[in-house]
Amino acid sequence: MGEVLFSRSSGQGMSKLGPDAYPTVLTNLIAGEISSSGPAIDVLICGMAGARQGWKEAPYLDVPAELSRLALGAVTPLMSGSRLKPNILPGVCQKFSGDEDVMRGEETQLLGLSTMCPGYSGLVVMPGTHSKWVMLAGTRIERFSTSMTGELFEVLRAHSVLRHSVNGEADAEDRESGLEMGLAAGFEAPHRLTANLFKIRAGSLLSGRRPGWCTGFLSGLLIGSEIGGQRDLIGGGDIPLVGGPALSGLYARGFAMIGAGTRIVDATDATLAGLKAARQA
Amino acid sequence: MGEVLFSRSSGQGMSKLGPDAYPTVLTNLIAGEISSSGPAIDVLICGMAGARQGWKEAPYLDVPAELSRLALGAVTPLMSGSRLKPNILPGVCQKFSGDEDVMRGEETQLLGLSTMCPGYSGLVVMPGTHSKWVMLAGTRIERFSTSMTGELFEVLRAHSVLRHSVNGEADAEDRESGLEMGLAAGFEAPHRLTANLFKIRAGSLLSGRRPGWCTGFLSGLLIGSEIGGQRDLIGGGDIPLVGGPALSGLYARGFAMIGAGTRIVDATDATLAGLKAARQA
Repeated sequence: MGEVLFSRSSGQGMSKLGPDAYPTVLTNLIAGEISSSGPAIDVLICGMAGARQGWKEAPYLDVPAELSRLALGAVTPLMSGSRLKPNILPGVCQKFSGDEDVMRGEETQLLGLSTMCPGYSGLVVMPGTHSKWVMLAGTRIERFSTSMTGELFEVLRAHSVLRHSVNGEADAEDRESGLEMGLAAGFEAPHRLTANLFKIRAGSLLSGRRPGWCTGFLSGLLIGSEIGGQRDLIGGGDIPLVGGPALSGLYARGFAMIGAGTRIVDATDATLAGLKAARQA
Repeated sequence: MGEVLFSRSSGQGMSKLGPDAYPTVLTNLIAGEISSSGPAIDVLICGMAGARQGWKEAPYLDVPAELSRLALGAVTPLMSGSRLKPNILPGVCQKFSGDEDVMRGEETQLLGLSTMCPGYSGLVVMPGTHSKWVMLAGTRIERFSTSMTGELFEVLRAHSVLRHSVNGEADAEDRESGLEMGLAAGFEAPHRLTANLFKIRAGSLLSGRRPGWCTGFLSGLLIGSEIGGQRDLIGGGDIPLVGGPALSGLYARGFAMIGAGTRIVDATDATLAGLKAARQA
């Protein structure tokens, strides 16, 4: 009970699937482990499957959102002729005018975090494509903010003039040096992000900055600007960082540079703990 | 003397041409107007043709850069068998460590501006893909900074999750409203740009914000953050805005919202005035 028996991953997500495709994708993913006949099996799902363009829309909970009641908001898509009984957990939204925000998946990780660090109240940072800064009080999300940091990194690297500077053979030492300088630049002047970004191009043209340095600087600048622009939210204790370990490691270095302690929590562990807690509720 | 007899434009620029292709592109562009035989014709060129990946590299002038000496830095690519004698003007660079920057083409517009507004000293803002904020003293560039504002608009609109919010039929009134709110958000918190960007996505999901509003907000937010992050550079007088009239109009509205006067100078007029001044020098 509560153990991981097997895991599977796939690139088949919301952006590639119509609603009708989900039952087959789910069935095929686990076909090798679970026979098609037998008693009913509850399947608990979180994330973008509950989006409007997903499998079936699971309406958002509003902030302040009590995560111990997360499972009550689940929706049940039809999966006829299968022993699988899917339930999709809701996301969380914030409707304050001019400060609208949404999450899907992170709420389940936050519920998991609340079982891994019982009673924790304060800031939680969730690095990712759309990183979240969340004010959590036990099992309640008070409010939150999303930064497009990870996505900016990807689109600038692939599609902007900076691609000429960051693409190429990257030296690890160069990258470290760029990361540190980018973090420092972001902390010092988060209000000058659009100007600081061009320093990468100019640095490669004028100062011989190589792809490793430029990539590290881009990453550090974006993370440093995200952190630097929200310093007022940082309190006294260690900040849980819930995300992939490599990316969380970069954030941990950034926070350390401004004297803030962190604790890295693997996002997959948090998701599993959250699904388990939602199942038990 | 000094009149425009004809003009031609083409999409054939640095990013699409190898060095060997320039003579043919130039010749074909003006073939209908200038016969291939006759006395030599000097051709003065500014911009990316002088980049390392252009026709022939024209080394940068360093800041502080005296623009009355611009033509002395021109390079002369070979164009054998032609009556055209091309000269490519240099760009300007800034090598301060950590504050490196480059321009190619804007220096010629600034020289032009110095003839259109003799004796002007102070801030010049040049809206564009890579917009420039320049401290000009007469014909001397003291220092400058580039913001990737226009390019961020393009890559976010085309390649990020925001494409779902900004693409679609745009209503002009919606767009106006989004522009005003985006400018205000940028002025208020330029240090929170990466978080403010996600408000577009959340606004379309939660508050029914339509493509026109989202496009206006994206544009306003980026321009407002560029201006808001550099307010310390704004002095007392009217700021010359050198750029395309439509984009300069958006900047003028932004500056007006924070009480700064502007004067729009058409970029093409400034370029022609600059080439003329360089020719006469």
